[in-house]
Amino acid sequence: MRKTILLLMFVSFSFSLSAQTLEVASPGNIVQLSFYIRDGVPYYSIKRFGREVIKPSRMGFILKDMQSLDKDFRITSSARNHFDETWTQPWGEKKDIRNNYNELTVKLERPSGTPSKMNITFRLYDDGLGFRYEIPEQEGLKKFEVMDELTEFAFTDDHMAWWIGAFWPNRYEYLYRHTPLSKADTVQTPFTMETSDGLFISMHEAALMDYPSMALKRTESFTYKAELYPWSDGTRVKAEVSLKTPWRTMQLSDDAGGLITSYLILNLNEPNKLGDVSWVQPGKYVGIWWAMHLGYYTWNPGPKHGATTENTRRYIDFASKYGFRGVLVEGWNLGWDGDWVKNGDQFNFSTPYPDYDFKGLADYAKQKGVYLIGHNETGGAIMNYERQLTDAFSLYEKLGIKAIKTGYVNWGRSIKRIDEEGNAQLEWHHGQYTVRHYQKVVEEAAKHHIMVDVHEPIKDTGLRRTFPNMMSREGARGEEYDAWGSEGGNPPEHTTILPFTRLLSGPMDFTPGIFALTFKDRPANRVNTTLARQLAHYVTIYSPLHMAADMIENYEANPKPFKFIQDVPTDWQDTRVLNASIGNYLTIVRQDRNSRDWYLGSITDEQGRILEAPLGFLEAGEKYVAEIYCDGQNADWRTNPYDIEITEMLVDNSMTLSLRLAAGGGEAIRFRPATEEDVKRLK
Amino acid sequence: MRKTILLLMFVSFSFSLSAQTLEVASPGNIVQLSFYIRDGVPYYSIKRFGREVIKPSRMGFILKDMQSLDKDFRITSSARNHFDETWTQPWGEKKDIRNNYNELTVKLERPSGTPSKMNITFRLYDDGLGFRYEIPEQEGLKKFEVMDELTEFAFTDDHMAWWIGAFWPNRYEYLYRHTPLSKADTVQTPFTMETSDGLFISMHEAALMDYPSMALKRTESFTYKAELYPWSDGTRVKAEVSLKTPWRTMQLSDDAGGLITSYLILNLNEPNKLGDVSWVQPGKYVGIWWAMHLGYYTWNPGPKHGATTENTRRYIDFASKYGFRGVLVEGWNLGWDGDWVKNGDQFNFSTPYPDYDFKGLADYAKQKGVYLIGHNETGGAIMNYERQLTDAFSLYEKLGIKAIKTGYVNWGRSIKRIDEEGNAQLEWHHGQYTVRHYQKVVEEAAKHHIMVDVHEPIKDTGLRRTFPNMMSREGARGEEYDAWGSEGGNPPEHTTILPFTRLLSGPMDFTPGIFALTFKDRPANRVNTTLARQLAHYVTIYSPLHMAADMIENYEANPKPFKFIQDVPTDWQDTRVLNASIGNYLTIVRQDRNSRDWYLGSITDEQGRILEAPLGFLEAGEKYVAEIYCDGQNADWRTNPYDIEITEMLVDNSMTLSLRLAAGGGEAIRFRPATEEDVKRLK
Repeated sequence: MRKTILLLMFVSFSFSLSAQTLEVASPGNIVQLSFYIRDGVPYYSIKRFGREVIKPSRMGFILKDMQSLDKDFRITSSARNHFDETWTQPWGEKKDIRNNYNELTVKLERPSGTPSKMNITFRLYDDGLGFRYEIPEQEGLKKFEVMDELTEFAFTDDHMAWWIGAFWPNRYEYLYRHTPLSKADTVQTPFTMETSDGLFISMHEAALMDYPSMALKRTESFTYKAELYPWSDGTRVKAEVSLKTPWRTMQLSDDAGGLITSYLILNLNEPNKLGDVSWVQPGKYVGIWWAMHLGYYTWNPGPKHGATTENTRRYIDFASKYGFRGVLVEGWNLGWDGDWVKNGDQFNFSTPYPDYDFKGLADYAKQKGVYLIGHNETGGAIMNYERQLTDAFSLYEKLGIKAIKTGYVNWGRSIKRIDEEGNAQLEWHHGQYTVRHYQKVVEEAAKHHIMVDVHEPIKDTGLRRTFPNMMSREGARGEEYDAWGSEGGNPPEHTTILPFTRLLSGPMDFTPGIFALTFKDRPANRVNTTLARQLAHYVTIYSPLHMAADMIENYEANPKPFKFIQDVPTDWQDTRVLNASIGNYLTIVRQDRNSRDWYLGSITDEQGRILEAPLGFLEAGEKYVAEIYCDGQNADWRTNPYDIEITEMLVDNSMTLSLRLAAGGGEAIRFRPATEEDVKRLK
Repeated sequence: MRKTILLLMFVSFSFSLSAQTLEVASPGNIVQLSFYIRDGVPYYSIKRFGREVIKPSRMGFILKDMQSLDKDFRITSSARNHFDETWTQPWGEKKDIRNNYNELTVKLERPSGTPSKMNITFRLYDDGLGFRYEIPEQEGLKKFEVMDELTEFAFTDDHMAWWIGAFWPNRYEYLYRHTPLSKADTVQTPFTMETSDGLFISMHEAALMDYPSMALKRTESFTYKAELYPWSDGTRVKAEVSLKTPWRTMQLSDDAGGLITSYLILNLNEPNKLGDVSWVQPGKYVGIWWAMHLGYYTWNPGPKHGATTENTRRYIDFASKYGFRGVLVEGWNLGWDGDWVKNGDQFNFSTPYPDYDFKGLADYAKQKGVYLIGHNETGGAIMNYERQLTDAFSLYEKLGIKAIKTGYVNWGRSIKRIDEEGNAQLEWHHGQYTVRHYQKVVEEAAKHHIMVDVHEPIKDTGLRRTFPNMMSREGARGEEYDAWGSEGGNPPEHTTILPFTRLLSGPMDFTPGIFALTFKDRPANRVNTTLARQLAHYVTIYSPLHMAADMIENYEANPKPFKFIQDVPTDWQDTRVLNASIGNYLTIVRQDRNSRDWYLGSITDEQGRILEAPLGFLEAGEKYVAEIYCDGQNADWRTNPYDIEITEMLVDNSMTLSLRLAAGGGEAIRFRPATEEDVKRLK
């Protein structure tokens, strides 16, 4: 490889080649990166096993009203570092995570002008890489504005990709498209693709703070560049020295499942900054929510108001009886009357409607061993929310409310900001202004020991490592899309794509677990899965806060399948992928962090499948009871979605189970160590 | 599903619908078949999990000079059967095979004329299906000729397929192409494809006897029909009542690996007809062969003649010392002088050249505990061969020769036949005439307790179940393509495609194990793999007779990697696929039939890979020594093919190994139960 690069250099330059070309490989020599300056412009390229993955790609910035950081560079120095550490997540999909990389930091300088200095740090992992820029302190530079980030990603061919568009009105809430790169013009990340040779690549970013979110824009054939969400005034970043950008990340795997068990995004974030986070506790919740989407209840007060004291007590009783930690109640606070999407400034985050005894219910919940989840819909009016943050969170803390679910329902560019001149500007959900806001909420919540679950969020970039109260987000089409609308809801394949795209960024509050799959009042709508599949989602979709989203009546009427939702935990010791094909199927097993139990979830798209699940993950020499929730022999998401078989069998780690998934179906299994009595009973 | 079909019928017919539509599903209700008559024409269609896989497809025959069996049919009766049995292979890739199907037999009749009767039997398995026609005894019918088989296979979309063309001059010896169906016009079977939804389909046939081989010809968009290799007179089949055709087969799997562990082709063959076959013994062999391909030796006599007494004694000594059962010697018998491809009639299968002491060597071999493999190159002159068969095989039997390797080097349509009028005709390698010949050799060999390994064969259709002395075949581009020619040999991906295409038909004598990967006299040629990959092929390519194909000097010079070839068996208790992506990579593990050892082979194409191999197949609670032969950290098939690492480690069935395969590389592992001393040594 080195030979080829040197040859290339030799053709282009006549001076000091070796000084201008730097190389770094991952610890196992799987991924190789070259960095060099050509005609003053910085470029990087990436190989894997000696084969090109990213062709020479430009780096740099255009600045406003000052010298840009785009050309005339030379390398002034470079430093290398090897790092290998295993750290522990306070909660997560895997307890212990190895962070093992080789690092190259390059210092660049222009011969004159201000600014003139820029540093780039590359971290090479066996499962991918990340790099970030630093615009360091330097003479004459304090504040500055970035007009464009020039970072390119030049792919080698017209790979097939799974993507949603950037700058689209409905934020991240679209069905994923599967097309060649040549048909994917401006996309959100994670942006996942497969080469014709079976290599899986996912592009994203890590540690996004005080910087706009990065979309990717195709500039020519298979080359993309960073496309930062701009401010309303057209600038991209309002910065001060020293600016460190988020990491631009690339995950690489020979099988789709390897993307899921890559922890590169987390590894590129800073360690926990909150200290003792024993108050952060993953768990499941129920809530007054799905009934609103079906039109049985309303958010706003009136004859069908959902957030009543009586309803809430029923949900608290249910949560307490069946071991749920939280109870979400939407529509409890002033501001839901009228067109709240237009009038988000009306929301009051401390004052309940008269039919909702806020304090009494909080006390009742506490007495029942559960907590209310504070619902904070803002309608995107974040200045209104920020004004109330401290007071509201202080109140919640006093009332024992341990988590909030925030909401920012509005179009993509609808975040109102009053600028220095007092004029109202509209900002993007994904711009720097809003990134700052989302972060402010997390940090304020941490002060009050409150966990955060964001709907209509900024994308996850692994900040939960640094701020472990940042639990979960929506940020994709969730279960509610099946409840309404004229376009048929989420097709069965939707949740076979999410784990390889949206979920690579972090946990998702998908709100699964719907048992009443069809709705008598809405024949055009339905949940597009079998019943067993609804259970499997608790394992295939990772979230530390998972909702049992259906109305509690539907769980009480189906105690057998409901048993799985009661049992399944939301905090894991380990996660492994047994079968994975993006958009087709997925089998994941996870080990409970607080017991020796394992859980399996397997799902398929519109095509029924037989998948093999070798049980090698179980402890050797132990017998387990497999509590199996699978599609019945005649199940089919369209014609027979309720056909479910619930059985038990004795298994051990030498066995392989054949999972028979119906069209649109799934399978969920709990594995628990067998008692002597189990062994007798099931032999 | 039933509903849709009935609706369709309702539109087309006004009479007796239910009587004309028959359905049968596989035991697990995975695969569903419908058979019906429309306007007098028989059709079948196939669904899997309720989704169409084969659209309505025509069935029937055109006969010569009599009424065809193509239309005016009605169903006269039908019968159903369920079968479930586990049978034992005398040798093979898996010892015990379950044969579990639902069968539907349909009897059809035309209202008048001769012939008028035709039966069709469908067997539905969870992993696919087969069907065959019977033209039964009936009034006025004795002999007849088939001009065309009308069987259609109407695929649902433009699936991506891996294929080689039919009626091409070089028989089966081509690199596989990977294109949409719309670019695959007339193809050999196995014909393997993947739907856009991730379903793998492979089309083939089972139990091909006294009938021409079936190619598939694309007739419109994604519909193929049976294209039987014709006789030189244009007829396709010369038949007598009762004619039973081979089974037309379709294997279906949700992952590519499932095709490899599907035993549908074997299950559709008749059980062992040879009785006691304890004389059939799988094993490895060496031989005087590769040196001819490199030009160091010649087949014909002269200064470089390979088949000399002295050379052969060296090979016998080597085989005996290192535990090989057989020694192949090519060019030992009269007939190699001059242009033997044109003059195959010159071959004499009993008479050696003067410098080859046939009897003395056979005795010497016996005394050393090995046997000579009788090489019978025919040049395609099968009448010459058939005339000598009994005498030659009697001689071999007397001399203790337990196996023959036959050869039919010549172009696709070059099999000379003298017809009834005494005229010479040229027949296809794959036509009925030659099918009869190949079968005759197997049956005659069985009488003399001789195992058969056919090069330039008719394709395998599972007849080894019925005739267990039919061991292995070539029937694809083997290792020798790397030795010569101007087109660069077999690219690394070749052996990542064969297991999903050619090898689905049965074992292949690929002749792996080349250690000297480059040739000093032939800089333009080379073996396009790493050294470790050569070892992996012994596991990824199944053959009961496997050659260690290199010259023995090259093994003696490399005793450490050679140890793997010595150890690896060729008869297996079980086979499992751990990773599979057609044309990209493959990991197979197989358990030795005669010990508790397991062997792993993993290979990749031009792209280096990291593959995960969970060791759940090992016996629980046992420690094993993994003897690992893997690509070195800097291995690369182009630049550094000899970089190999040979290590040992203690493992158990709860572990997962990460296989690091270099570009064009591979990995081979032997797992053997650890002794106490191993445990101490390796802890």
